[in-house]
Amino acid sequence: MDPKQSERRKFLKRSVALAGGLGLGAAKPALGQLEGPEAFLRGSPEIVGYGKRSRFVTSERIPHGGRASPDAFGLDFHIAAPLQDSVGVITPSSLHYMGTTRGSFVPDIDPDKHRLMIHGMVDNPIVFTMDELKRLPSVTRLHFIECAGNRSNKRHTTVQETHGMTSCAEWTGVLLSTLLKEAGVQAGADWLVAEGVEEVKGASSLPMSKAMEDCIVCYGMNGEAVRPQQGYPLRLLVPGFEGIFNVKWLRRIKVVDQYYMTYNDFGHLTQDPDGAALGYQIGPKSVITHPSGGQQMPGPGFYEVSGLAWSGGGAVKRVEVTTDGGHSWFDAEIRGTAHRHAHTRFTFPWTWDGTACELQSRCIDELGQIQPSRAQAAEFWKQPVGQPPRVKGQDNSIQPWRVDADGSIHNAIA
Amino acid sequence: MDPKQSERRKFLKRSVALAGGLGLGAAKPALGQLEGPEAFLRGSPEIVGYGKRSRFVTSERIPHGGRASPDAFGLDFHIAAPLQDSVGVITPSSLHYMGTTRGSFVPDIDPDKHRLMIHGMVDNPIVFTMDELKRLPSVTRLHFIECAGNRSNKRHTTVQETHGMTSCAEWTGVLLSTLLKEAGVQAGADWLVAEGVEEVKGASSLPMSKAMEDCIVCYGMNGEAVRPQQGYPLRLLVPGFEGIFNVKWLRRIKVVDQYYMTYNDFGHLTQDPDGAALGYQIGPKSVITHPSGGQQMPGPGFYEVSGLAWSGGGAVKRVEVTTDGGHSWFDAEIRGTAHRHAHTRFTFPWTWDGTACELQSRCIDELGQIQPSRAQAAEFWKQPVGQPPRVKGQDNSIQPWRVDADGSIHNAIA
Repeated sequence: MDPKQSERRKFLKRSVALAGGLGLGAAKPALGQLEGPEAFLRGSPEIVGYGKRSRFVTSERIPHGGRASPDAFGLDFHIAAPLQDSVGVITPSSLHYMGTTRGSFVPDIDPDKHRLMIHGMVDNPIVFTMDELKRLPSVTRLHFIECAGNRSNKRHTTVQETHGMTSCAEWTGVLLSTLLKEAGVQAGADWLVAEGVEEVKGASSLPMSKAMEDCIVCYGMNGEAVRPQQGYPLRLLVPGFEGIFNVKWLRRIKVVDQYYMTYNDFGHLTQDPDGAALGYQIGPKSVITHPSGGQQMPGPGFYEVSGLAWSGGGAVKRVEVTTDGGHSWFDAEIRGTAHRHAHTRFTFPWTWDGTACELQSRCIDELGQIQPSRAQAAEFWKQPVGQPPRVKGQDNSIQPWRVDADGSIHNAIA
Repeated sequence: MDPKQSERRKFLKRSVALAGGLGLGAAKPALGQLEGPEAFLRGSPEIVGYGKRSRFVTSERIPHGGRASPDAFGLDFHIAAPLQDSVGVITPSSLHYMGTTRGSFVPDIDPDKHRLMIHGMVDNPIVFTMDELKRLPSVTRLHFIECAGNRSNKRHTTVQETHGMTSCAEWTGVLLSTLLKEAGVQAGADWLVAEGVEEVKGASSLPMSKAMEDCIVCYGMNGEAVRPQQGYPLRLLVPGFEGIFNVKWLRRIKVVDQYYMTYNDFGHLTQDPDGAALGYQIGPKSVITHPSGGQQMPGPGFYEVSGLAWSGGGAVKRVEVTTDGGHSWFDAEIRGTAHRHAHTRFTFPWTWDGTACELQSRCIDELGQIQPSRAQAAEFWKQPVGQPPRVKGQDNSIQPWRVDADGSIHNAIA
């Protein structure tokens, strides 16, 4: 019997004992022990037409950092997804993280009036209605989006607080390259500026090479229309790049000859122009979502350690898990297919012996990039001569969870 | 240039012309033509905590057949998904079709009180709490569920009415084989009966071979808890089998030595015992969702024909499309990965010349099974001597959509 099988059996044996402990009669459970439902709910628009979740399921997004940070542009909420309750790789659209320059204010857009304009250094400037875009050849792909500010620090308790600014959805739309090829990109047009309807001109500069590679002008998300919080009716997907490039409420793409610094680059993250330009690719990253900070294990025994891994470098190739703070590492199991630039679910069978320990995970992507330890990342940020500049704020270092002997889980970042 | 590229170009040329027709100034669109949003909505629990969709998106489920059919057990609604608005392969949980023996009544279950019992011909009867199940090794897989009664007839106008009793989700849970192996299945125990909490004992008999192959006891759906309409907190997934096998609100699995006829088999579909036993595998099936019945094409030009294909026989291998009523067939493009027992999105580039025609699609699965024409299916149902019996009501025949010269689309089944 392989070790995983053995751990599984141990858990299941214990489970029978637990059943006994609940007064269910160890060997022969009886039918009377199965309770019926609280009630039967009669069909209603909320149950039949567009169904709600159970009243017992209360998982919600929370402001990242837990509060509004007042700035010149008003509320600047970043709203984090409840990763501690996540299963699989899809983030439900209702729970997908939100990050905007306007915080939790959301544009209310009539799709019949919305247009996408492509202009600038092109032979054929063009304006699309939503209906016209939906007639074009489409793609459907699973992609994560992550805010560059998604990081852990010692103030954070739960995985929603440490890593909730990343989410993953099935996106549907038209390849940006399809539109650009038709518009006819002129020689020397190496950049574009994508702009949404946000008052502060949520806009990002993108290299043409990326635009032609795999960017998608999306109208669909998880099988229905993109949600208002995610850019309804149109969002630009820039797979693997920092979240802010994925322009929401997209209405204009201007093809240009050089990099333009936008509000998103300058002033948003820092007032220092030398450090203001955004980084691009999200580094290889992972986090254990269960068990994770703030959770409580009921006692020793078998647990499936479960988490998410992703990388702007492409597909996740391997995930490793340690249960002893990094002394020994083991391969986790990848659940399902690891898609390019998509959350990837990993699991690891673990029997907790009841002593204090530390859980960590690390991601290795298809480029061979390895998620760094916190010490390695700190060393990297020193930026010695000869090292490429790294944007302040990006942090893809390993998240350690400390398990105390009482089964409580804590952020191990001191 | 390949034909698809050529068709794409033709559409896009026309699109520029359309823009002119809308009064946008043919060649040089101006910024003033881009309207802002109607308003900015201030953050609220419905926008931030668990976000709603846009007020402009109104796609809903409808009763299959459009009415309640009174029978001895009360309302018997089957609620169909709006496939005409679908994109990609995920059905949003709020729109996943519903079929129950109690119609639109939904049990309201407290997960802390819910139990799953495995008993009967096993060495170790066992009762699980939800928390215990969630600690076990898990899988996440994309699977469709389809009601055996999902078929087209001449009364039906839209694809929601003809095919809305199928949906697809990312399901997460524990393999049934994991639980059964631990319980210790005894010699001769070749069947099991799975039972939910429905008053009329929603239960189905399953062969042990299928239970051990790929069935999943699911607590997760599209990244969150299974919805009440889909069996919260626990649903049995029986990939590729008819919908009624996928027992909702699962609370009991009894391992037995023979097939037991349950309410789901007898009396539900027909009162004739000879024809009452359910069939198992869903046949290879497909339907064009856009353009489809009840929709209106604005005029000649390029359209992406888009649809869904699936099969109980495994993965979809190929999909073919005809635009001339079946005289000539062309390979459609499969979008993304074709998963086993999952909806698979196909697309086909098409330039409509403005004349009346007929669109159809057909699915070929990995077993080599080919979706039959309506005539072939009718011939099959005659059940000549020597042919295996086929359950009344199963219908996986090709759906034809008639396109009239005015661009209106109709169910071509006379």
